[in-house]
Amino acid sequence: MEATADRYMRRALELGAQAEGRTRPNPAVGAVVVADNQIVGEGFHPAAGQPHAEVFALQAAAERAVNADLYVTLEPCSHQGRTGPCTEVIIAAGIRRVFVGTQDPNPQVAGSGIRRLQQAGIQVAVGLRDKECRRLIAPFAKHVTTGLPFVILKSAVTLDGQTATSTGDSQWISNSRSREEVHRLRDRVDAIMVGVGTVLHDDPKLTTRLPGGRDPLRIVVDSQLRTPPQATLLHLDSSAETLIAHISTASVERRDRLLENRATLLKTAESDGRVDLHDLLAQLGRRGVQSVLLEGGAQLNAAFLKADLIDRMMIFVAPKVIGGNGGFGIFAGEGFARLADAKQLQDIRFRQFGDDILIEGEVIRCLPA
Amino acid sequence: MEATADRYMRRALELGAQAEGRTRPNPAVGAVVVADNQIVGEGFHPAAGQPHAEVFALQAAAERAVNADLYVTLEPCSHQGRTGPCTEVIIAAGIRRVFVGTQDPNPQVAGSGIRRLQQAGIQVAVGLRDKECRRLIAPFAKHVTTGLPFVILKSAVTLDGQTATSTGDSQWISNSRSREEVHRLRDRVDAIMVGVGTVLHDDPKLTTRLPGGRDPLRIVVDSQLRTPPQATLLHLDSSAETLIAHISTASVERRDRLLENRATLLKTAESDGRVDLHDLLAQLGRRGVQSVLLEGGAQLNAAFLKADLIDRMMIFVAPKVIGGNGGFGIFAGEGFARLADAKQLQDIRFRQFGDDILIEGEVIRCLPA
Repeated sequence: MEATADRYMRRALELGAQAEGRTRPNPAVGAVVVADNQIVGEGFHPAAGQPHAEVFALQAAAERAVNADLYVTLEPCSHQGRTGPCTEVIIAAGIRRVFVGTQDPNPQVAGSGIRRLQQAGIQVAVGLRDKECRRLIAPFAKHVTTGLPFVILKSAVTLDGQTATSTGDSQWISNSRSREEVHRLRDRVDAIMVGVGTVLHDDPKLTTRLPGGRDPLRIVVDSQLRTPPQATLLHLDSSAETLIAHISTASVERRDRLLENRATLLKTAESDGRVDLHDLLAQLGRRGVQSVLLEGGAQLNAAFLKADLIDRMMIFVAPKVIGGNGGFGIFAGEGFARLADAKQLQDIRFRQFGDDILIEGEVIRCLPA
Repeated sequence: MEATADRYMRRALELGAQAEGRTRPNPAVGAVVVADNQIVGEGFHPAAGQPHAEVFALQAAAERAVNADLYVTLEPCSHQGRTGPCTEVIIAAGIRRVFVGTQDPNPQVAGSGIRRLQQAGIQVAVGLRDKECRRLIAPFAKHVTTGLPFVILKSAVTLDGQTATSTGDSQWISNSRSREEVHRLRDRVDAIMVGVGTVLHDDPKLTTRLPGGRDPLRIVVDSQLRTPPQATLLHLDSSAETLIAHISTASVERRDRLLENRATLLKTAESDGRVDLHDLLAQLGRRGVQSVLLEGGAQLNAAFLKADLIDRMMIFVAPKVIGGNGGFGIFAGEGFARLADAKQLQDIRFRQFGDDILIEGEVIRCLPA
């Protein structure tokens, strides 16, 4: 029983992942209806305004849903949103048991969907593949509980931890399969962020180069608006805009030049004469940005690390060494002096891309004192 | 057929690995006899002076060896060594086919064992799991073809490539399961090597802490003999000796003090005022050392990298970040300026130890110009 239940929840997770990054402001959710040990209905939530995962799965199951089991990665909603409450659809369909991956992190929901099902006499089991189910909705959960987007730091390093040689040569650290995965990542996030140093040094596009891919919002952290008006990322054929975050002391002339070049400007509070990252994230959160892919460089990465604003790290490690200690690393500046203070990751995943390996994990956050 | 043949060779590899690091000056070898799709005999070469793997496997198979297949990781010997030639034992046993993992790298053997079997009417197939079979005998092959030991650089780094914080705190980067694997590694190599900086900073034991483990020869690269006479590695209860490599300008007084403290001293040629690493390795090779585990620090690692004397790298990556660029890395000094010159690894293997991952590969060597 346990093993098959687990298999169905894994299938629900697979389904939910199909629309990852496409459901804003809703979370990605997958659902499976099982009758007589057979999947009789599957569904996922494709986008806001569309039916929820449970509804698709129950529609597919039709009358076979009576006395069947429902596996859903996230607690079903019990409130009236743009679509009706899923709990009522589940009850009306005659479902006997519901396996819920994880509770809704939204404090306004907080178990009310589970209670509603139980009140209707449905058995509810919560927590099957809880970790993976929480991971699937991590951007939504971060945003709904804190108002800030979920920040994923992505980098590619050599085996000796370098992102570029001492002369700045960084093309390419990782192999083509890893780089393709980065484009799949960009396709799933709401925004991609770099520091102005990266713009000045690399003149990147920051687009998603994938068939059918969608460009994320491009964000440049650029306190003094040093982004050149002719920068490539301002002159792309892309449906996404380029937002430049700056502080009030940036020159008006530069501001005007960038506005003329289709940049969206975002003024933030300042901290030590630079863009205050917490304020920047809060403003992005208010604009509905739930996930940000942080792609460096080392200065910006270090500022995020220092501010403890990184939620996940995804580091591609390539089997080569540059040697020496004069190259560039993931982070610039001062590190932690004591190893005990090093930032730890948890829920570690490893994925191979040819000879590269992707090490992924969630940052263990300091609790507020 | 192919799939089962592969399975038998993998079993032979497993057997051979049981005596890895114990067979000096011979290579580690495993063998399996298969009759009617069943293993009827297994063997490995346990130590020099003991029978070879094929002999053990054939003895176990007894009369079932007639018309059977033999799987052996390395080409059988055809010369008279301390034991008789294996080819004659194989022929006498009535073996029908021999699957050889890889040819003997010894230029004095060079296919003669295979030819001898073929002349006796035995079918011989060479190259099944060739890569793994060559890896099993890598130290032997390096030593027999070049006179130098096989050098394995081992290090443990954070996800951002640091081996210690800026204050030198390095205990512990990797987890206890990774550290246990390091002891299994030490148990399989002939020698372990560090620079004097590591002795001065960490005062290490460099012993194998494993039940039934064997300590490798300890080598300190210490041009001017700065190793303190009271260093822990000179005062161990260990069957292995501690060898200190120095150059002729080291003070006679220090030399005498270290000799009084049970150190073995080894004078080498000098290169830029330091121990010439090629000469050191050549001297170790003449003493029969086939494998050296290089455990740092960053100065010595960098000197080995520059001299292109590293054969394999084994890097444990731990899921934590120190941040900044002021900490210590695997290598000190100058790195390669161009990414195209970065030292590439091949035959990459990944192994998980809890949340740590070990990335292992063979250095692609520059061909002599």
